[in-house]
Amino acid sequence: MDMQKMNKDDLLALKAAAEQALADYRSRGLQLNMARGKPCTEQLDLCASIHETLTKFKDEDGADVRNYGNLVGTPECRRLFGQILGVDPSQVLVGGSSSLNMMHFTVGNAYVRGVLDGMTPWHKLDKVKFLCPSPGYDRHFAVTNYFNIENVPVPMLADGPDMDAIEKLVASDPAVKGVWVVPKYSNPSGITFSDEVVRRFAALNPAAEDFRIFWDNAYAVHDLYAEEENRDHLLNIYDELKKNGKEDMVYMFASTSKVTMATGGVGAMAMSPRNFEWIKKNLGVATIGFDRVNQLRHARYIPDMQALDRVMQGHAAILRPKFETVLSSLERELADLNCCSWSKPRGGYFVSFFAPKGTAKRIVALCKEAGVVLTGAGATYPYGNDPDDSNIRIAPSFPPLSELEQAMEVFCWSVKLAAAEKALS
Amino acid sequence: MDMQKMNKDDLLALKAAAEQALADYRSRGLQLNMARGKPCTEQLDLCASIHETLTKFKDEDGADVRNYGNLVGTPECRRLFGQILGVDPSQVLVGGSSSLNMMHFTVGNAYVRGVLDGMTPWHKLDKVKFLCPSPGYDRHFAVTNYFNIENVPVPMLADGPDMDAIEKLVASDPAVKGVWVVPKYSNPSGITFSDEVVRRFAALNPAAEDFRIFWDNAYAVHDLYAEEENRDHLLNIYDELKKNGKEDMVYMFASTSKVTMATGGVGAMAMSPRNFEWIKKNLGVATIGFDRVNQLRHARYIPDMQALDRVMQGHAAILRPKFETVLSSLERELADLNCCSWSKPRGGYFVSFFAPKGTAKRIVALCKEAGVVLTGAGATYPYGNDPDDSNIRIAPSFPPLSELEQAMEVFCWSVKLAAAEKALS
Repeated sequence: MDMQKMNKDDLLALKAAAEQALADYRSRGLQLNMARGKPCTEQLDLCASIHETLTKFKDEDGADVRNYGNLVGTPECRRLFGQILGVDPSQVLVGGSSSLNMMHFTVGNAYVRGVLDGMTPWHKLDKVKFLCPSPGYDRHFAVTNYFNIENVPVPMLADGPDMDAIEKLVASDPAVKGVWVVPKYSNPSGITFSDEVVRRFAALNPAAEDFRIFWDNAYAVHDLYAEEENRDHLLNIYDELKKNGKEDMVYMFASTSKVTMATGGVGAMAMSPRNFEWIKKNLGVATIGFDRVNQLRHARYIPDMQALDRVMQGHAAILRPKFETVLSSLERELADLNCCSWSKPRGGYFVSFFAPKGTAKRIVALCKEAGVVLTGAGATYPYGNDPDDSNIRIAPSFPPLSELEQAMEVFCWSVKLAAAEKALS
Repeated sequence: MDMQKMNKDDLLALKAAAEQALADYRSRGLQLNMARGKPCTEQLDLCASIHETLTKFKDEDGADVRNYGNLVGTPECRRLFGQILGVDPSQVLVGGSSSLNMMHFTVGNAYVRGVLDGMTPWHKLDKVKFLCPSPGYDRHFAVTNYFNIENVPVPMLADGPDMDAIEKLVASDPAVKGVWVVPKYSNPSGITFSDEVVRRFAALNPAAEDFRIFWDNAYAVHDLYAEEENRDHLLNIYDELKKNGKEDMVYMFASTSKVTMATGGVGAMAMSPRNFEWIKKNLGVATIGFDRVNQLRHARYIPDMQALDRVMQGHAAILRPKFETVLSSLERELADLNCCSWSKPRGGYFVSFFAPKGTAKRIVALCKEAGVVLTGAGATYPYGNDPDDSNIRIAPSFPPLSELEQAMEVFCWSVKLAAAEKALS
């Protein structure tokens, strides 16, 4: 029944039923976690044999990957990430196990030394701002916050960020130095940027010459479905930028954190030749080199895009039923109430849920009391401040399917209770 | 013959002989490299089976190391580094493959956020200085240089840095915020700090409350000799600092880069509980976590200090003849000239050579022409500026023994030629 049409008695009855159900769950002592996009054990076991693949240590160029040398990465791994990101291998810098750490370095390098040689380091400026399409990835926002940068929220729409807002802010304010995006199977909204959105990004006219798009393509190959027509397709932003002579405007990132292992994977970044030389020069101060042993281990295990697709289909086979469980629970329990909305992603790691305004914090708290941990309400907005107190990020990957069903029952009852309380207040 | 006693004819004869010898080497097209402290292939093969040891992925605490969680490191690895550095495992933060990268992060964190919560970030100060006992490690100096910090050279003496100079500078100048040291088998001097030097470090009275000692114990277990009496022993600075209630004053670093693999090893840092909490909090912005798969791989392969000592004796068996070759070449070819001096280290990776004043650059250039690459002259001083143009760092580890003998012949002839030229000029 549509909540808008419920009278007070209906609402009190819904509230009582939800309280009873949640009390029951509380007594069971559940311990379920849907807080972070963590792979489950079955996913991690998919690539267990990767640890046995490395018995010879020379890369294609004949270099012993166990020894110092070659800051930019093994050629095999550069080629693989070049294919994932759609750029020439020469533009790829393969790093350690964390692409987030490369983003942190890149923002830090702009802060300490400047975006390119001769540009003003950001620490010397009174004000630096980053645009943060929201809901977005909390760890992105934390990086810019660390470097004393103001995070400016921008709305996310159905096909990407609100480009009208972004174009205006970027063109009018020289303090706007960057924008964080996850362009494919976005965290948390699950959407992939439309071709038009990508083209508008590639045509931005920033007031700041050192404006950069942080294009975190974390879920570039993370489809839930095998059929081409059920996969999202992201336009290659680098090609579009190049057409406009603006290829310095982007840093692209990817990793195997959700391909092989969350901790023991390989991260990479790709960029224009000019950006590459400057990042390489400064990165060479921060480390002698990354773990090329692990890079080669990965390249041997995943020699090409076909091998990569096979691994990703293994992940999809595990994740698809979990996403379907979340979506069918939401549909079954909440669609009729007509007071919430949620994304129906075809890839990535998250379902983005919008509860009635002013109830997200309460829902997360109710879930926690009943033993289900969610990402903190508001975490998907800069400074943890969701102005509507509405968005909740659901991460279905980690719990086993049976637990996930229980967790979703707890979640849906919590939504009903919070919605009823709100309507009655 | 003592060079001081040579007449012009003697010098011209020496010069002619050296020119002839070097011309001969140039015609051979040698390609030998003694520039960096790179392990040789035999050393890297010592631990080849480390890649086969990891088949189970739960650490002592039952956590799957392949998944997110636990920023500070696997318990096994924290214990191992606790033993290497002589501190409680709770004080150890195990990182990725590069301890230099942890130093870079630590200086950067002071620069961006401050040394502890509430302290002024260094980027807000007009002037920040680091003391750089020299000759020292060029990559240390590069890190502080990157963060706009002035590197101030301080002399190295036979038992450690000139502590009179350090005490005075630290106590009198609040802009002095840190000091770089390699306290055991120092890079490049090969000496180990005496107990008195360590105690004087631990008793420093800095004018700056956020002064820190960067104690890079890179060669903590890197003895060339098996017998206890032929090994250097470094006093535990943390214990000494604690006696003085100054335990916040140090960050300690170590790694397995010269234990297992130069690139695929594990780095770690250790510090006081107060420093630990602050570093942990800020490091959590820069990464979700380090490669705990590789940490566990290492802890399984090297479960205790006995296993570590066995590996290190394998390295010593390979390195000892190389150091002996370098030292016997120098002794045989140059001792009589009485115009040079060099270190005779009992561990580590370097021999530090002092040529006649004003000849180091010339010697390095002569070697290069004859196919032998050395660390650039001056690199061991801040800003590459050796005021005496005298120090050269010799790294014997990488070349095979047969090539090393040739390389040392080239080196000694280059010294003779440069010394003769200088005396004749």
